[in-house]
Amino acid sequence: MTEKKNWNELKSGESLVAFFLIRRVETKTTAGGNRYLDIVLGDAGGEITARMWDCKQEDETLYQSNMLVKIKGSIAEWQGKRQVKIDKIRAVVEDDQVDINAFIPVAPYSPEAMYAELLQYLSGMENVKLRETVQLLLTEAGEKLLIHPAAVQNHHALRSGLLYHTLTMLKAGEKLADVYTFLDKDLLYAGIMLHDVAKLDEIDANALGIATEYTVEGQLLGHIVQGIKKIEKAAGKAGLDEETSLLLQHMLLSHHYEPEYGSPKRPMFPEAEILHYLDIIDARMFDMQKALNETEPGNFSDKLWTLNNRRLYKR
Amino acid sequence: MTEKKNWNELKSGESLVAFFLIRRVETKTTAGGNRYLDIVLGDAGGEITARMWDCKQEDETLYQSNMLVKIKGSIAEWQGKRQVKIDKIRAVVEDDQVDINAFIPVAPYSPEAMYAELLQYLSGMENVKLRETVQLLLTEAGEKLLIHPAAVQNHHALRSGLLYHTLTMLKAGEKLADVYTFLDKDLLYAGIMLHDVAKLDEIDANALGIATEYTVEGQLLGHIVQGIKKIEKAAGKAGLDEETSLLLQHMLLSHHYEPEYGSPKRPMFPEAEILHYLDIIDARMFDMQKALNETEPGNFSDKLWTLNNRRLYKR
Amino acid sequence: MTEKKNWNELKSGESLVAFFLIRRVETKTTAGGNRYLDIVLGDAGGEITARMWDCKQEDETLYQSNMLVKIKGSIAEWQGKRQVKIDKIRAVVEDDQVDINAFIPVAPYSPEAMYAELLQYLSGMENVKLRETVQLLLTEAGEKLLIHPAAVQNHHALRSGLLYHTLTMLKAGEKLADVYTFLDKDLLYAGIMLHDVAKLDEIDANALGIATEYTVEGQLLGHIVQGIKKIEKAAGKAGLDEETSLLLQHMLLSHHYEPEYGSPKRPMFPEAEILHYLDIIDARMFDMQKALNETEPGNFSDKLWTLNNRRLYKR
Amino acid sequence: MTEKKNWNELKSGESLVAFFLIRRVETKTTAGGNRYLDIVLGDAGGEITARMWDCKQEDETLYQSNMLVKIKGSIAEWQGKRQVKIDKIRAVVEDDQVDINAFIPVAPYSPEAMYAELLQYLSGMENVKLRETVQLLLTEAGEKLLIHPAAVQNHHALRSGLLYHTLTMLKAGEKLADVYTFLDKDLLYAGIMLHDVAKLDEIDANALGIATEYTVEGQLLGHIVQGIKKIEKAAGKAGLDEETSLLLQHMLLSHHYEPEYGSPKRPMFPEAEILHYLDIIDARMFDMQKALNETEPGNFSDKLWTLNNRRLYKR
Amino acid sequence: MTEKKNWNELKSGESLVAFFLIRRVETKTTAGGNRYLDIVLGDAGGEITARMWDCKQEDETLYQSNMLVKIKGSIAEWQGKRQVKIDKIRAVVEDDQVDINAFIPVAPYSPEAMYAELLQYLSGMENVKLRETVQLLLTEAGEKLLIHPAAVQNHHALRSGLLYHTLTMLKAGEKLADVYTFLDKDLLYAGIMLHDVAKLDEIDANALGIATEYTVEGQLLGHIVQGIKKIEKAAGKAGLDEETSLLLQHMLLSHHYEPEYGSPKRPMFPEAEILHYLDIIDARMFDMQKALNETEPGNFSDKLWTLNNRRLYKR
Amino acid sequence: MTEKKNWNELKSGESLVAFFLIRRVETKTTAGGNRYLDIVLGDAGGEITARMWDCKQEDETLYQSNMLVKIKGSIAEWQGKRQVKIDKIRAVVEDDQVDINAFIPVAPYSPEAMYAELLQYLSGMENVKLRETVQLLLTEAGEKLLIHPAAVQNHHALRSGLLYHTLTMLKAGEKLADVYTFLDKDLLYAGIMLHDVAKLDEIDANALGIATEYTVEGQLLGHIVQGIKKIEKAAGKAGLDEETSLLLQHMLLSHHYEPEYGSPKRPMFPEAEILHYLDIIDARMFDMQKALNETEPGNFSDKLWTLNNRRLYKR
Repeated sequence: MTEKKNWNELKSGESLVAFFLIRRVETKTTAGGNRYLDIVLGDAGGEITARMWDCKQEDETLYQSNMLVKIKGSIAEWQGKRQVKIDKIRAVVEDDQVDINAFIPVAPYSPEAMYAELLQYLSGMENVKLRETVQLLLTEAGEKLLIHPAAVQNHHALRSGLLYHTLTMLKAGEKLADVYTFLDKDLLYAGIMLHDVAKLDEIDANALGIATEYTVEGQLLGHIVQGIKKIEKAAGKAGLDEETSLLLQHMLLSHHYEPEYGSPKRPMFPEAEILHYLDIIDARMFDMQKALNETEPGNFSDKLWTLNNRRLYKR
Repeated sequence: MTEKKNWNELKSGESLVAFFLIRRVETKTTAGGNRYLDIVLGDAGGEITARMWDCKQEDETLYQSNMLVKIKGSIAEWQGKRQVKIDKIRAVVEDDQVDINAFIPVAPYSPEAMYAELLQYLSGMENVKLRETVQLLLTEAGEKLLIHPAAVQNHHALRSGLLYHTLTMLKAGEKLADVYTFLDKDLLYAGIMLHDVAKLDEIDANALGIATEYTVEGQLLGHIVQGIKKIEKAAGKAGLDEETSLLLQHMLLSHHYEPEYGSPKRPMFPEAEILHYLDIIDARMFDMQKALNETEPGNFSDKLWTLNNRRLYKR
Repeated sequence: MTEKKNWNELKSGESLVAFFLIRRVETKTTAGGNRYLDIVLGDAGGEITARMWDCKQEDETLYQSNMLVKIKGSIAEWQGKRQVKIDKIRAVVEDDQVDINAFIPVAPYSPEAMYAELLQYLSGMENVKLRETVQLLLTEAGEKLLIHPAAVQNHHALRSGLLYHTLTMLKAGEKLADVYTFLDKDLLYAGIMLHDVAKLDEIDANALGIATEYTVEGQLLGHIVQGIKKIEKAAGKAGLDEETSLLLQHMLLSHHYEPEYGSPKRPMFPEAEILHYLDIIDARMFDMQKALNETEPGNFSDKLWTLNNRRLYKR
Repeated sequence: MTEKKNWNELKSGESLVAFFLIRRVETKTTAGGNRYLDIVLGDAGGEITARMWDCKQEDETLYQSNMLVKIKGSIAEWQGKRQVKIDKIRAVVEDDQVDINAFIPVAPYSPEAMYAELLQYLSGMENVKLRETVQLLLTEAGEKLLIHPAAVQNHHALRSGLLYHTLTMLKAGEKLADVYTFLDKDLLYAGIMLHDVAKLDEIDANALGIATEYTVEGQLLGHIVQGIKKIEKAAGKAGLDEETSLLLQHMLLSHHYEPEYGSPKRPMFPEAEILHYLDIIDARMFDMQKALNETEPGNFSDKLWTLNNRRLYKR
Repeated sequence: MTEKKNWNELKSGESLVAFFLIRRVETKTTAGGNRYLDIVLGDAGGEITARMWDCKQEDETLYQSNMLVKIKGSIAEWQGKRQVKIDKIRAVVEDDQVDINAFIPVAPYSPEAMYAELLQYLSGMENVKLRETVQLLLTEAGEKLLIHPAAVQNHHALRSGLLYHTLTMLKAGEKLADVYTFLDKDLLYAGIMLHDVAKLDEIDANALGIATEYTVEGQLLGHIVQGIKKIEKAAGKAGLDEETSLLLQHMLLSHHYEPEYGSPKRPMFPEAEILHYLDIIDARMFDMQKALNETEPGNFSDKLWTLNNRRLYKR
Repeated sequence: MTEKKNWNELKSGESLVAFFLIRRVETKTTAGGNRYLDIVLGDAGGEITARMWDCKQEDETLYQSNMLVKIKGSIAEWQGKRQVKIDKIRAVVEDDQVDINAFIPVAPYSPEAMYAELLQYLSGMENVKLRETVQLLLTEAGEKLLIHPAAVQNHHALRSGLLYHTLTMLKAGEKLADVYTFLDKDLLYAGIMLHDVAKLDEIDANALGIATEYTVEGQLLGHIVQGIKKIEKAAGKAGLDEETSLLLQHMLLSHHYEPEYGSPKRPMFPEAEILHYLDIIDARMFDMQKALNETEPGNFSDKLWTLNNRRLYKR
């Protein structure tokens, strides 16, 4: 991948072989009536426009945004800007051993390590039927849980973001339960592990763990209602008592706290209340850390939409 | 029931035999340490305080508010006000043939007639599996649907109020679908018939059809989420296609329209939109007709809490 | 009008004779100091830029946006895009027999048929003086009522939109009054027919029935206050009793329901309440039907500004 | 009126002759079936309950709240509290020469003096037809303007309150126009003089200048819309040009500034903007001065409802 | 203190010697013109009215609400209710060794132990000048910090409530900083220790640690602004660098988060954000635990004003 | 400065010598790798793009936006638009005697005259220590007060805008105090003179009196809190009594009135209330006068962001 470092420095006419993520792609037609692909390619170094002039009909559906590809071509110049003229393009395969971190934002820990840690919390739960309820839903989630993002645009919109977000909340929840000792840890852990699990059904993500769009059910119902229905069924299978099942469903229903953010009911017991705060704190810390990483000391960040347009100060 | 007309006119010392609804009841203790029942009795003619001095322990639990009783006693005077001294009290039985209309607010049509009319609408639905889905939930509702109120305090808080509200919406919905012909009548009817069906689970009502309180599940989840779960199950049993089931669930989810009134999503297709307006129009017409019935022509009603504290004008 | 179908397919250099609506027009100056008209032409097939190089001074004021014209010219190419080089241009005349439907959005029924139907509702009113009050204002509105749009940008912003909106509300109002029989049909019909009549004074529209802008009075007072003043005068002429005139004025004042939408008072009687809901339902149905007509089944529409940025689902 | 100073100190059994304002009055019935008047009397010294046992049928309608009466009777004691036993009662007449200031809140200047000063402002207006428009409406208002209050409960709810409020705004408006010299004084004065003139029609007041209730038209339309209609007519009679009439109507429409306070449009030119601020400043200064007069130095007032529940600090 | 357990069971005429907290006290006058004290006494067992008939002038100012007293007297009965006739009364003295916990709500740990733990956190701070800044303000707070409540009515309105609230936040803050490791612990601890320190100046409390009222400065400026001024001064004395002083002041300014709760700026860096959430979580946990302690399992609490009128569910 | 009038009319190739304000400046790189300055120049006649091809490294930092420069160059044409090719550029010096009014918006009176008038108000204050408090802060402000703007973007964002705004408020305040005579003029004047004084610390402005950006302290605390701290210190030095100092601080704290505009407390005495209204009136009059100056009679202005998107009407 030495090439990748270089494409920013290549001059017009020089050739290029590199891996890229397709960010956007569109089929266009020349004045002469020929169809071609107009692509925006990206990697950690930025973005560049590319054109593939000799494009077969199957290429038009084959190459989609958020797909990893290998490109062979050369640098051209058009209207004063550099672009890539593509000679060859193909999807990346396993053997290419491309490091996905260079192309998309990913969680800072490996999904396998995070999942193992999450299972530690699960196995520590004492309420057997509650644990089984959670277990059933994690099993149902399967592989998707390892790479699914937690959002389309907001906080934790990164590969394995959902798992990373859930695990960090478990850690913080464990800590707060040490201070507020009257909290029921089992109920809190179950609430944390399941609070966003229906995002797997609400948001479509591709094989890279990039959110592509909301599903039809996601738009019509949303992950809160979807999650409640999942818990109802899993609790039934696991034989969980009715009261605990209800409490868990209420925790999902209320965890966005405000009606205008999707919760028709506010939390009605301490574990539901804490679940909300763990969720928002983790989102805020993620967004703040990310914004400050991109800010110079002694300066303010840009206005951040997810933080009510606040500008953050970096010491 | 000639007596009932008279209790307002009886003088101190005169005896009384009459049917009443117990509005409130409390056990108190005299200075001398004896326990007695302090009751507020009511009928169409108003309310009067009553006391039952010789009260057995079982009486304290037997006589509850919103219970119909037969009273034998006499009029006494205490601190300048008339009250009833109860000699005998017993629950009303079938043979008493008491007309319940004289004691509590009831819908203007018999529950049997309304239910028959509702079944007409049901049988007119062409989508077989959608009809079966509705049928399953009506069957599950059973007898309760005949007398259940639609609310604890708000509009249609009357015996058979839920059925009356639903039927009137069906009639108005049928009419609007004649004007806006692109509406899917089957979907609209199903939405109307099921939109409040989970109020049977959200609100406890006694045998008279008077709402007593919210259930635990009603408070933790609410009839919208409860209803969605019911539809999911019934649709599964009836073999309804996934899309229609989703649309119906969305209609429930969105029918309160505003997040702060319990709908996390706003209606996303015309039938859901119309369902909301049919619901609110029927509630408004009910409240307005009720308030104007109690207002003199040329005057304004009192401020009405359910109508943003508006005062209505009676022509 | 065979030509019209073709302009999209014409190649550079080919000649063109066609009818168009001028969408936007601007006078510009060449580097050489010559003035020319830069026009955007449109019809049902889309839009194309046109230039009229030899332009007389009178042309600059003669050709305005939203005007129907006949064009003779040819296709040219500029910066890779096709445009029309205009040789001759003139306003469309009666003899051209141009079908206006091909150029602007129009109501689905003829204005004459709709007006006849509206008069049916009017003649059915039993309160003679109330009917005369409405009659006076319809007469005053005259021809403008036949083609006036109901809005500049929102719902029913189409030729004859005001009449179409009013008539549909009358139909729906008639239906609801069959269900809620305590409503005074005469008052309701009068309210519907007059609720937006002052939009004729609030919004300027051209001869095609396209809204051009708000009038000065429209901006300073708005159609609600303007309408109240009109009713006050007409009711005086017709000898309508003071109470009914007041009720009608209140219906106008309150029909937007919320202060922030222009109603300082909320409806204080059932006919005023229903008027509001008929208005909003008709607006919503119009907007939803329009958006769904442009959406593929199984998909969501774009975000709709008039519907709180909702995206609609098309079955 | 030496008696008036004394009734607070009279002992049970002592006789009393005094003038009072009837604050509340109700007809009640004794256990023995006799009807009597239960009255609350008041003057600057406070309130006391009174009973008139031998009451004729005409007395029940004759004596109303907010009426000045002369009382002859004696002090009695009932349930530990002093009350007045009325022997004779009659309405106050001119010859009694009662000083109304001792019974109700009045403006600090005589209505005649204030009206004369207002006419000074009127006569200083240079726009003849605008002056005539205002003149017509002042003439129409007639005597009522001298004593009418400006509100039922809020600021300037005192005898001649409307006149006092209007005059103070004229004074302040004159001053601000000296600083912001681009303001049109004529338009500003006209706006001030007419901004609340329709309160004469919105609020019923009795002969003492005490607001009793809102009129039917006041409730259905409100003084803003009522005032606009009055201006439209008066401007027509006076031959005022259409633009100035519109501006004046807009000033009324917008002077409450916020939709939720009754103004569907916000001010669209400086005179309308200033009118609003003069209005609110005068209301605030009145309420604050009144509250601080009742507060000890170094302390806070009670929470003031008209000032967003603020408590004021008295130096 | 065996007597204290008994006063609820004492009969009319029996004598009583006991310690009480004066909850409310008022001087009244008998019909005969004698002045007496009308007192409400309270302890852990409830409240009882008491009267001290022979009351000297100095007693009227000596005995105030929220004062601990020793009472000698007897039980009397008046209008069917028991009350205490006081023969002797005196303020509690050290030697009485009264346990204050029986009379007012207190924090669950001793102030000395909590203060020692707080000093542990202080001494662990590495930024010397920041530590000195905090130290200066704690020293200035002095003894008051040991018993001061955190509120007049809301959460932690108990003796030593301010200290208890601060310490719990320190514990939770320490925990969260273990999860979100990029947080600056020194800055966070300083923010926690000082965030409410100006409540000592905002709220007056008596020697028992019961809040009595807001101070004049508290009402005019509030503890946020007061606290900022204190930090500015202390930071100056301690020689703290300008940037850190500013950050600390900003943490105070923003810790209520929403403008309507008193923070004109929202948090602009992570430590300020976390400070807010630690504050609100501790308040919520306190209020919830308190409410649930008073609720039966399987039931809902009353509506809680401090929790948006939510009713909590007790498992 | 005859040249300045001409640059709009110069043709391609003609040479140019003129003074300009640099509005925006950016360093760019040619395809050939040479760095050049891309500048937007402006004066009262409008804006024109300029390029300085031979640019030394020091030029890149020397020439900043909002700097006055003298340009020598010629008109070139690029992509159909005229631009300036710069041959020589230098900062304006005193000897150039450039009239700044032609380049930036300035207050309509000279800063010296306005300052003298402000001192008149100051010397008229009777409360000696209050006057000294104000004096201290004015002295501390020094020269900056003469030219500082009152805002970055909003009202009075002009050279000497802060002084102009303050003086106009003093004039209007003096007038209103003549009408509302219970106002304390000294306190009011002090509040006016100091209400925005900390904008000198909140907003950075360059030597021309153009606001460049908010300071770090300005963003973290804001001019309200900054001003309170300044008053606290100055009052201490001047020996002002605690109560008056508090009142003055409260006036600053509350002068934005609404929490969402930065005031956590609303005004609690009349002088604070009036201060707010004087501030908002002066802002509104400024914005309205400015917008109407740019509007043709009989027309509406554009939507004005600072006036809730209102469009103003120009008579």
